[in-house]
Amino acid sequence: MSYRAPLPDIASALKHGAGLQRAIADGLYGDLGEDDIDAVIAEAGRFAANVIAPLNIVGDRHGTPFRDGTVTTPPGWKEAYRAWAAAGWNGIAAPAEWGGQDLPHAVKVACNEIWNSGSMAFIIGPVLTMAAIEALSTHGTQALKETYLPRLVSGEWTGTMQLTEPQAGSDVGALRTRAVRHGDGSYRLTGQKIFITYGEHDLTDNIIHFVLARLPDAPSGTKGISLFLVPKFLVNADGSLGERNDVRAHSIEHKMGIHASPTCTMVYGDKGGAIGFLVGKEHAGMACMFTMMNSARLSVGIGGVGVAERATQAAFAYARERKQGRTAGMPTDQSVTIIDHVDVRRMLLTMRALTRAARAICYATAIALDRAERGADETARRTGQDRAALLTPVAKAFSTDVGTEVASLGIQVHGGMGYIEETGAAQHYRDARIAQIYEGTNGIQAIDLVTRKVPLNDGQTVRHFIGELRETVARLRAANDPGFGATATRLGEAVESLDRATQWILKQGGRTADTVLAGATSYLRLFAYAAGGCMLAEEALAAARGAANAADRIGTARFFAENMAVQAGGLETCVTQSAESVTTATLPDPTA
Amino acid sequence: MSYRAPLPDIASALKHGAGLQRAIADGLYGDLGEDDIDAVIAEAGRFAANVIAPLNIVGDRHGTPFRDGTVTTPPGWKEAYRAWAAAGWNGIAAPAEWGGQDLPHAVKVACNEIWNSGSMAFIIGPVLTMAAIEALSTHGTQALKETYLPRLVSGEWTGTMQLTEPQAGSDVGALRTRAVRHGDGSYRLTGQKIFITYGEHDLTDNIIHFVLARLPDAPSGTKGISLFLVPKFLVNADGSLGERNDVRAHSIEHKMGIHASPTCTMVYGDKGGAIGFLVGKEHAGMACMFTMMNSARLSVGIGGVGVAERATQAAFAYARERKQGRTAGMPTDQSVTIIDHVDVRRMLLTMRALTRAARAICYATAIALDRAERGADETARRTGQDRAALLTPVAKAFSTDVGTEVASLGIQVHGGMGYIEETGAAQHYRDARIAQIYEGTNGIQAIDLVTRKVPLNDGQTVRHFIGELRETVARLRAANDPGFGATATRLGEAVESLDRATQWILKQGGRTADTVLAGATSYLRLFAYAAGGCMLAEEALAAARGAANAADRIGTARFFAENMAVQAGGLETCVTQSAESVTTATLPDPTA
Repeated sequence: MSYRAPLPDIASALKHGAGLQRAIADGLYGDLGEDDIDAVIAEAGRFAANVIAPLNIVGDRHGTPFRDGTVTTPPGWKEAYRAWAAAGWNGIAAPAEWGGQDLPHAVKVACNEIWNSGSMAFIIGPVLTMAAIEALSTHGTQALKETYLPRLVSGEWTGTMQLTEPQAGSDVGALRTRAVRHGDGSYRLTGQKIFITYGEHDLTDNIIHFVLARLPDAPSGTKGISLFLVPKFLVNADGSLGERNDVRAHSIEHKMGIHASPTCTMVYGDKGGAIGFLVGKEHAGMACMFTMMNSARLSVGIGGVGVAERATQAAFAYARERKQGRTAGMPTDQSVTIIDHVDVRRMLLTMRALTRAARAICYATAIALDRAERGADETARRTGQDRAALLTPVAKAFSTDVGTEVASLGIQVHGGMGYIEETGAAQHYRDARIAQIYEGTNGIQAIDLVTRKVPLNDGQTVRHFIGELRETVARLRAANDPGFGATATRLGEAVESLDRATQWILKQGGRTADTVLAGATSYLRLFAYAAGGCMLAEEALAAARGAANAADRIGTARFFAENMAVQAGGLETCVTQSAESVTTATLPDPTA
Repeated sequence: MSYRAPLPDIASALKHGAGLQRAIADGLYGDLGEDDIDAVIAEAGRFAANVIAPLNIVGDRHGTPFRDGTVTTPPGWKEAYRAWAAAGWNGIAAPAEWGGQDLPHAVKVACNEIWNSGSMAFIIGPVLTMAAIEALSTHGTQALKETYLPRLVSGEWTGTMQLTEPQAGSDVGALRTRAVRHGDGSYRLTGQKIFITYGEHDLTDNIIHFVLARLPDAPSGTKGISLFLVPKFLVNADGSLGERNDVRAHSIEHKMGIHASPTCTMVYGDKGGAIGFLVGKEHAGMACMFTMMNSARLSVGIGGVGVAERATQAAFAYARERKQGRTAGMPTDQSVTIIDHVDVRRMLLTMRALTRAARAICYATAIALDRAERGADETARRTGQDRAALLTPVAKAFSTDVGTEVASLGIQVHGGMGYIEETGAAQHYRDARIAQIYEGTNGIQAIDLVTRKVPLNDGQTVRHFIGELRETVARLRAANDPGFGATATRLGEAVESLDRATQWILKQGGRTADTVLAGATSYLRLFAYAAGGCMLAEEALAAARGAANAADRIGTARFFAENMAVQAGGLETCVTQSAESVTTATLPDPTA
């Protein structure tokens, strides 16, 4: 159950899989060098291992009891949160102007992975604060920034993001929470929000809600949505806390997992209206949301990696300890540790390969976000922005699918013990499952990929990316290292499958054609297999130049290519030839 | 959350997918006709829908509190169990001689599916009683049979199967529970068993434990295991209950799912030894276990189908009701039910196709068991036995994998609501997960398939089966129905992949060669895709001859062929070319 940050894996993925060394060479990070980055990540690893990870099962068991409108977090959580914020982790990527450390996404994503390994239920609250900071610092007025940003960045207060209503889930535009102009520049909000993560808690003295609502004269749909800052306690001119605002938590949900993350139904305007302040322009709330969509989705994706990593570590530890059965020819009174059984090896290798591939994809997305923000010129920033846009749905959906798949294998490695809650394997499985749903379901990610991202710049963005994957395959062929087995062949086939499927999608035109949508999920998986496989191959090629862990890296790249990427051909066929089987099938009620 | 038995699906799978009509034509079932079978299944469906299904969520919430050695089942469970037993369902397939109905496996498996849809936690207890009945009626002395069988068959008492000990899970031969001869023909048992399903409960006045233990002079391993009947309460000569035996439940497990099924640690011999009676011969306990292994594994497999079916029904119902978003071109103030979104269709079709394929495979296994028992001559029975042996690991592993995969999709269709326990989608996901583990993990099933079942009769058994699949493909080609799309092509490719992978395995020789074991899980999935696809195609071909539901059946067969069976090529490669990537990879601790 213990966790240690996999620092060599993280370093390999960042530097070689995701391209950090190139980004540093391009001058993206100024004075910040590899050693600085390593040091920050190592420190995050120590904090997560020592303080957060032990609380994960405590949080699962205690949950967050709700009584009289208040939420009690599990024993030890308040102290852990405050120590974490005091160490500066909450502001790691926030603007230096407001007390943050302004570190790049590349560092933030690695730390986020580590916090998620420690406890998904813990970090999901701060992740939403980070998103709120991003929205406010980009779109808020100077007055709002001055009042709220320093204490959001320090973690003295937390932030929430409030979009969902009972009739408005994936379709945010259907929301009905109402905001009216009050005449003094402020607004009054009435309505109800559901599924609000950390909407109420006892970690901090104040909570700053960021709420999407609709003005009386707003057009329907997403074009009529505005973003409001609604503090739980109003803030006096001197910065002290004032009156309680007209917003309260009505209840919390009974969820399958992340029990320590309170999921609240929030009620606005019992007493006439909660006081809110506009962030950005009226009716432009969705633009504010889009500002942080890529990084928020990446934050959820890396959560999948974090849980997968912890589940993998637990499975390896159990498989090294648990004795059961024999290998061929052993006497019946002897037994081996189960890691010696081939099928258990297969499961462990699958867990490790999927986790590492998802990690590399998430890190590459983070570096693309850094290029979008820190690129030397407009062209470089635009290219980074487009690359980040392309990779984000893959990072979110593939990594969170991997989170669940790996956690499930983790249970299987534990056998019957995996189904008993005390091992923790079951908690990973329950916790991981939410990430496939929130921040845009994985189906929506796939649709985003095929309808918006692949067609970006008439396909130039994706074609350029595929070109880079081809270069990796060429390097593999040139290396001609027998230890790689069929890696080059399998990845070559996968990249060509991806290319053909991509060309097919581009040729269909019509962004929402059902024939494209039918294969969206298969296309996303195909994309991830080709991209993840090539990133693992880059890590292996780098390690093959004399690193101590070369066998491990090469083994992972090979395993992924020969057992995952090998499915590319089938996926290509699903995308390009199976749509009619989806669109024409009838869906009768067979019990009628 | 309501459930209705999918009678048309069950009938289609039995008659056309699994070959019931052929079995009836072969005279396997005597006077028992299709109408009789339909009537029994329909009655089971009514009972499950009205009595059992509503208790499923009650059982999940209440669990089975354990205090002072006793287990309290959830409210309503005792009444439901007694009504179920009183209706004769417990003895449906038990020998008529002991009060059973002696109905074929084909009927039992369909009913078992239905009970599992009603509540997996409910039926797992009786399923073990059925296994105990099978062991006792095959191997017990006349005296033991007379004392215990009538009341086990009627359900007045339940049975347990006790194999597992802390050090003896998958490796049953490592068990240490000790039995000593008492001189009067009885034995005294001391030791501890874990993970004992319904080891203690309040549904019945007595519980009959079937316990594997080791005599003092027993050889090590599985050849030194004997089977004992150990009643909770001893039975007097007049049949009345006598003294409490020296066996007790020590504790119950806190499991992720099937909360209403008490999983007990049992302690034998606190007071000197529990009185036990030998079943079968000394040291021949494993032979008794093997008697019921195929049917027990099939019972677990069909549990996967049962949960998948219920999850599918829930997802369809939600998708037909929940409005969210729009299809292309709709005004923003309108919305559609989510079943109209293509990616949701894909998920629903996947759920339905996987469930139906797994059902057909399980039913085909049941009919093979019937042929093994009821075949006209020794050759026919032997052929049936071999077919059952071949299909059993596929039925167990594929169906339980499908149970989890489909339950996971069920959560996804529900979106955020799926993660909230009140919808029930999460319970299906938690409940289904155990079936991949117990009664031989799915990895062990795959190993059994490639090392014992494929080589049966020098491969003749599997070759004959593949020959039948080819006949289905030929019938599809001959039908040449455009509604089938690429079904014939995809299934043809899948069957040829299965054939090549099979030949490759047979050529490796050496039953436990690591190169074969490395691809075992992929081979099992490939087998299931080819077999399940062809069975669905047989159902579709039958329906195409004028049935009202022809479009549905053809649509399912086509969807499965074009989206699942299409993965056959990649799986074949995993089996035949990727073993080295598994066997040569290093497994270092990356955090070291």
